[in-house]
Amino acid sequence: MADRATLEDLVRLQGERVRALKQQKASAEQIEEEVAKLLKLKAQLGPDEGKQKFVLKTPKGTRDYSPRQMAVREKVFDVIISCFKRHGAEVIDTPVFELKETLTGKYGEDSKLIYDLKDQGGELLSLRYDLTVPFARYLAMNKLTNIKRYHIAKDFDIAGQFDPMIPDAECLKIMCEILSSLQIGDFLVKVNDRRILDGTFAVCGVPDSKFRTICSSVDKLDKVSWEEVKSEMVGEKGLAPEVANRIGDYVQQHGGVSLVEQLLQDPKLSQNKQALEGLGDLKLLFEYLTLFGIADKISFDLSLARGLDYYTGVIFEAVLLQPPAQAGEEPLGVGSVAAGGRYDGLVGMFDPKGRKVPCVGLSIGVERIFSIVEQRLEALKEKVRTTETQVLVASAQKKLLEERLKLISELWDAGIKAELLYKKNPKLLNQLQYCEEAGIPLVAIIGEQELKDGVIKLRSVASREEVDVRREDLVEEIRRKTSQPLCIC
Amino acid sequence: MADRATLEDLVRLQGERVRALKQQKASAEQIEEEVAKLLKLKAQLGPDEGKQKFVLKTPKGTRDYSPRQMAVREKVFDVIISCFKRHGAEVIDTPVFELKETLTGKYGEDSKLIYDLKDQGGELLSLRYDLTVPFARYLAMNKLTNIKRYHIAKDFDIAGQFDPMIPDAECLKIMCEILSSLQIGDFLVKVNDRRILDGTFAVCGVPDSKFRTICSSVDKLDKVSWEEVKSEMVGEKGLAPEVANRIGDYVQQHGGVSLVEQLLQDPKLSQNKQALEGLGDLKLLFEYLTLFGIADKISFDLSLARGLDYYTGVIFEAVLLQPPAQAGEEPLGVGSVAAGGRYDGLVGMFDPKGRKVPCVGLSIGVERIFSIVEQRLEALKEKVRTTETQVLVASAQKKLLEERLKLISELWDAGIKAELLYKKNPKLLNQLQYCEEAGIPLVAIIGEQELKDGVIKLRSVASREEVDVRREDLVEEIRRKTSQPLCIC
Repeated sequence: MADRATLEDLVRLQGERVRALKQQKASAEQIEEEVAKLLKLKAQLGPDEGKQKFVLKTPKGTRDYSPRQMAVREKVFDVIISCFKRHGAEVIDTPVFELKETLTGKYGEDSKLIYDLKDQGGELLSLRYDLTVPFARYLAMNKLTNIKRYHIAKDFDIAGQFDPMIPDAECLKIMCEILSSLQIGDFLVKVNDRRILDGTFAVCGVPDSKFRTICSSVDKLDKVSWEEVKSEMVGEKGLAPEVANRIGDYVQQHGGVSLVEQLLQDPKLSQNKQALEGLGDLKLLFEYLTLFGIADKISFDLSLARGLDYYTGVIFEAVLLQPPAQAGEEPLGVGSVAAGGRYDGLVGMFDPKGRKVPCVGLSIGVERIFSIVEQRLEALKEKVRTTETQVLVASAQKKLLEERLKLISELWDAGIKAELLYKKNPKLLNQLQYCEEAGIPLVAIIGEQELKDGVIKLRSVASREEVDVRREDLVEEIRRKTSQPLCIC
Repeated sequence: MADRATLEDLVRLQGERVRALKQQKASAEQIEEEVAKLLKLKAQLGPDEGKQKFVLKTPKGTRDYSPRQMAVREKVFDVIISCFKRHGAEVIDTPVFELKETLTGKYGEDSKLIYDLKDQGGELLSLRYDLTVPFARYLAMNKLTNIKRYHIAKDFDIAGQFDPMIPDAECLKIMCEILSSLQIGDFLVKVNDRRILDGTFAVCGVPDSKFRTICSSVDKLDKVSWEEVKSEMVGEKGLAPEVANRIGDYVQQHGGVSLVEQLLQDPKLSQNKQALEGLGDLKLLFEYLTLFGIADKISFDLSLARGLDYYTGVIFEAVLLQPPAQAGEEPLGVGSVAAGGRYDGLVGMFDPKGRKVPCVGLSIGVERIFSIVEQRLEALKEKVRTTETQVLVASAQKKLLEERLKLISELWDAGIKAELLYKKNPKLLNQLQYCEEAGIPLVAIIGEQELKDGVIKLRSVASREEVDVRREDLVEEIRRKTSQPLCIC
């Protein structure tokens, strides 16, 4: 019997033949004959055939990370985590899935994007959609009223009842620090406040029931023109044109603290309690941002709306201003790279007594940032090392596997990062080539003569320089040659 | 109207009253009256009442990690990752869920533990159950035949066609290095080979169709007596008693390389090709393990079977010998803390042509290890810091928030890990207390006099010593006082 792979090829070819005959409108008899052959082949292939045929892929919307991509990811995470730690954050973690009930009713229109699991022993579970809702559930469950934490290297939140705008300003400072450190180009942080948005809608005459849906129309202003947004409001959402026009007058404005001050004097907005509170807080926020030296990075943008239902106060979103395009290169077309806001009601939704824990937080768009950094490295043709191996343990002659194993074991035990080829008798040339490919800087070469002399030949891959090192000095010598200078003294 | 929390209390109390009346067998009229009150209260509470009532918990089998637990987890991961890097591993990552088809048919009896997701746009998805199958899928999908990688800090695998037992020996070396570094007590690594097991079953007269189920009975020998295992084999699985007895003679043996050599001479086993191959490889493995200096940690154990279907050769499992129990303390009762083996057929199951990529790997039981380390720290009452904050920026008088914000911004920009209290006018005592609680070693105190003099008062929390530091020297001074010595020179 033919082997499985050959059989599968035959099945495929026979299948193609049948399809071709059908397309050519061949005689029923001829088709029948070829179908019979196909079925016979399939029978030979046996019941496993289905398993072998499925397309090898990751689920929609997910991806693998290759070692090269992981190296990029680790660098990005390093920047983010050191910033979070610099700001005194603790770290927590929560499960990948939550009770479905934990997630429902928290996101608004985004809810339809939640992945549900099949019933597992009586619990309805869903994959977490963000880290904010699990964090709020964690606070309520552990009755915590005060914490500053980060969560898998991308979400940072400050929970607690504090004096206004101090934690909010720190969140914006963190966002700016991270985006500056990542060196992915110039950026701007748009800031607005849910209370200003709601106040604007109220004074413009939007009915209460339409606040959220009009909010989501306004949110599109960064992608489409005002005319299109207006036509959606009037045409699809049934807003009176004059109401839409009034909204347009507000939401097309953006600027700095002077715009905040101007709106505080606005005859209509200044009559609305919510808007007034929001504007007052923004004014204070700008004071703190000036002290933090980042006011020039911030734009008060009345069109910023953010989709999620749980925001209650300040909201913000960082966008790259100029994608880091080389001359002639396609612009990257990335939008938001970080975002966040204040959500004072979410924890209370989990508390049986509705006790509130005010929170403000931010989330870094790590996936987008990975792509940007990856693309930039591609463009620069920069070589990324994917291991940290310091030395390859090699042999110059045959029959030295045992000596290689003994030596590499000594090196590992001394904390040296070392590899060897998994062959009994590898050629020296192949071993050196492996170092070139993997970027390993040193080779420790064992030879018969060296064994007699009690030395190891230590070769620098880049310079091809070779020195004999006494075996007892080898660890020190490898450390010396591969260590970053730890101090200047 | 009363606020929500009060209403909920009322509903609960009224509910209790109704239940009490029913128990006391009160008059129907009286009960009816109180039920009417209850319904009225519930109506006031509104339709949201259901949402508030659900139990706040994580899904079965999952847990949150508090900052303290995360600190432990990070220390454990540090040990594991540095070992993987020392052995030259790259790192990859794969999605949390896979196509259901990717996972089915790979695990054997464990398959029933796989979490399925609900249909999402035509794809049947499941949560990954281990990292081995996603890794094999990754290799087949990217047509990789050669890689040494780790995967979220707990799985390490070597894929590729190499000379026998060299990568297998390295996996065992890695396991021993990690378990030694973690200092969680003495351990032993049991080693066996699927081919030896299968060969044993064959020579003992087990029918082919019963290999896997008898295998899983044998696997229980570390928890229950031979008599119980035998009665399961004979009673439940229908094995002839004399066949079971023959198996018992083999699988109750364990020892070192001398047992391997003895079985190589065994009149029955030495006639079985599979068993012979397995024993030959184990002999070679022991040679390498001796060179690696870990042969004394290894026990050839014929009862070790490992549940997963995908293993094809050497299998191994590390167990703690003596749980680290203090006098009078309960033993921890942890079993396996690391395990692995060779799976030469798994990648081929994903390849359309069935091309094989031999693999060997190990997985560290990080959850168990966390518990052990956590319990040990609890027992020692050891304080675990959950942040790395070097300095708290504090003020001695009121109205210095702006100065605090300016100073902390300077410190953050210089890379210092710094915090401040989010209050306009915090009391100095509260600020000092916060440092005590959070383990922050330094306080930079701003006062009116200090501002005039251009200095900051730097206080060491432990010694209560205070020195005036010129503002321009502050960063250097904080670094000096909080840095670990980087070198001895």
